[in-house]
Amino acid sequence: MDKIHLFQKSINQVISELDLKRSPAELYEPIEYTMNQGGKRLRPLLTLLACDLFGGDTDKAIYPALSIEVFHNFTLVHDDIMDKAPLRRGLETVYKKWNDNIAILAGDTMFALAYSYALKTDPELVPQVLSVFSKAAIEVCEGQQLDMNYETQQLVTIPEYIHMIRLKTAVLLGASLEIGAICARAKADDIRKIYDFGIDLGIAFQIKDDLLDLYGEQEKFGKQTGGDIAANKKTYLYLKAHELASPTQADKLIEWFADTDQGKTTQKVAEVKAIFDALDIKRQVEEVMESYYEQALASLDGLSVEAEQKASLLAYAKYLFFRTH
Amino acid sequence: MDKIHLFQKSINQVISELDLKRSPAELYEPIEYTMNQGGKRLRPLLTLLACDLFGGDTDKAIYPALSIEVFHNFTLVHDDIMDKAPLRRGLETVYKKWNDNIAILAGDTMFALAYSYALKTDPELVPQVLSVFSKAAIEVCEGQQLDMNYETQQLVTIPEYIHMIRLKTAVLLGASLEIGAICARAKADDIRKIYDFGIDLGIAFQIKDDLLDLYGEQEKFGKQTGGDIAANKKTYLYLKAHELASPTQADKLIEWFADTDQGKTTQKVAEVKAIFDALDIKRQVEEVMESYYEQALASLDGLSVEAEQKASLLAYAKYLFFRTH
Repeated sequence: MDKIHLFQKSINQVISELDLKRSPAELYEPIEYTMNQGGKRLRPLLTLLACDLFGGDTDKAIYPALSIEVFHNFTLVHDDIMDKAPLRRGLETVYKKWNDNIAILAGDTMFALAYSYALKTDPELVPQVLSVFSKAAIEVCEGQQLDMNYETQQLVTIPEYIHMIRLKTAVLLGASLEIGAICARAKADDIRKIYDFGIDLGIAFQIKDDLLDLYGEQEKFGKQTGGDIAANKKTYLYLKAHELASPTQADKLIEWFADTDQGKTTQKVAEVKAIFDALDIKRQVEEVMESYYEQALASLDGLSVEAEQKASLLAYAKYLFFRTH
Repeated sequence: MDKIHLFQKSINQVISELDLKRSPAELYEPIEYTMNQGGKRLRPLLTLLACDLFGGDTDKAIYPALSIEVFHNFTLVHDDIMDKAPLRRGLETVYKKWNDNIAILAGDTMFALAYSYALKTDPELVPQVLSVFSKAAIEVCEGQQLDMNYETQQLVTIPEYIHMIRLKTAVLLGASLEIGAICARAKADDIRKIYDFGIDLGIAFQIKDDLLDLYGEQEKFGKQTGGDIAANKKTYLYLKAHELASPTQADKLIEWFADTDQGKTTQKVAEVKAIFDALDIKRQVEEVMESYYEQALASLDGLSVEAEQKASLLAYAKYLFFRTH
């Protein structure tokens, strides 16, 4: 079995062994429900891959890796309340299945559990691991606030958008890798570079998500094509189109993105996509994404370890970059 | 200046110097608003008093103390959403002044900030401090869930109630003291005893709150007498009365505690209080509170330090016990 699958197996194993049959059941059932919903387990996998890359013992990194996954799932539970999202991974969201109060408190508990798992590593690693974790946690909250601000903010620039997705998505990928490197006792310069790799990979990853929402193989997976357009989300695609649009096209875009009539969704997605296509947005956004991906690879290239040590992480980065859904 | 006032000054100083003028302002303004609302600063004071009691350098404990205060305030921000409480310390609550989403996210950020402050002590203390902190944080969430469960649960026993206030209130007082003792590098046996002291003090403290709500000098402070009765809260007073009531009195109590008509509050408080008085509830609950207080003092007595070292903490415990509002 290759390392990626091996590590994924370890992560799923440790999640399945979590002691969540605890009292009060009203609190722990939603936590168990959330943790067992699956997902890519992207972040803990990055932690183990980074630890392994630097020749570390991945057993020492498994609980810090778990803590990041629990933290990430906590943010989803709270984000879903804020975004009023009814579904997550094809299942009812926690606030929808139970209620807002349960979702708030189960999320808070997951945050505390995440910290308790992060402590389960060598004591001398704890201050550094926790400091990276806390910094990322604060930044993720800041990113979510900016995302909420941008919903009502008329004009969002591309640098503002990149700043937001950096905080909301990329820093946790960076921190996942950094924590893996810390657990392997990597050199300071390597730790900085693997974090930078994670930031650029994270930004590319989010732009890829924006692209896949409209151009991905949705029909295969029962997802709606153009969900972001339907929800008036100002993604990279929209911001780039807005930047390049003629006055007439810009007016049309602004008009559609102010529309909340769900009955017109099909027409809206088609018309907005037609403007995107006329402006060659897909290709241009792909180029931006590629430049972040290339920058990520350059950071990886600069690490002071043999090329073969990087093979698994590189393979996983490629998989993320070339995925079609 | 005595130590209590000296430590209170240090705590208020470090809170006033917190760097909360950060971006995005939508996130940090509610945090600054919450942290500047005042309050007793009970928990960080206990941390510094415990550190001092064991001869520690309280400068080493000031950030861990701050972290507990920030954590406590985070729980209030989220509890107020869950309880739909419009006011806190005479000011609008965060979700009321802003909105639910801001209150959820500002609370989450405070939790992350709390952890980042807890890290600001000697690195070799961090694993133990954080482990005590995380355990308490999880238990506080469990206590809040039980409190919500008991709102709709018909029958709550006194042991169940004690279990709930132990988790919701007492463990954080215990942890505050324990963390102070850890920062002073106290012996394991002393750390356990100061924690036990905090647990019993915390339970006595909450029962005192229950008593003061009905029998305190509310009128001096503009608070409503019998607020817990008006809100149908099953406090220790109610549970004791329910235990001792005749069938007629029990029916009356149950009937009033199912009533949500705010127009009848004055009559309701008067009639329930009359039943309490007929059953001599005040004296009996005071006796229970006293027994927890005595137990707390016994733990304090058992510490392996000179009596004079305990004077400040003892004085503060007395103040909490004999307060009239």
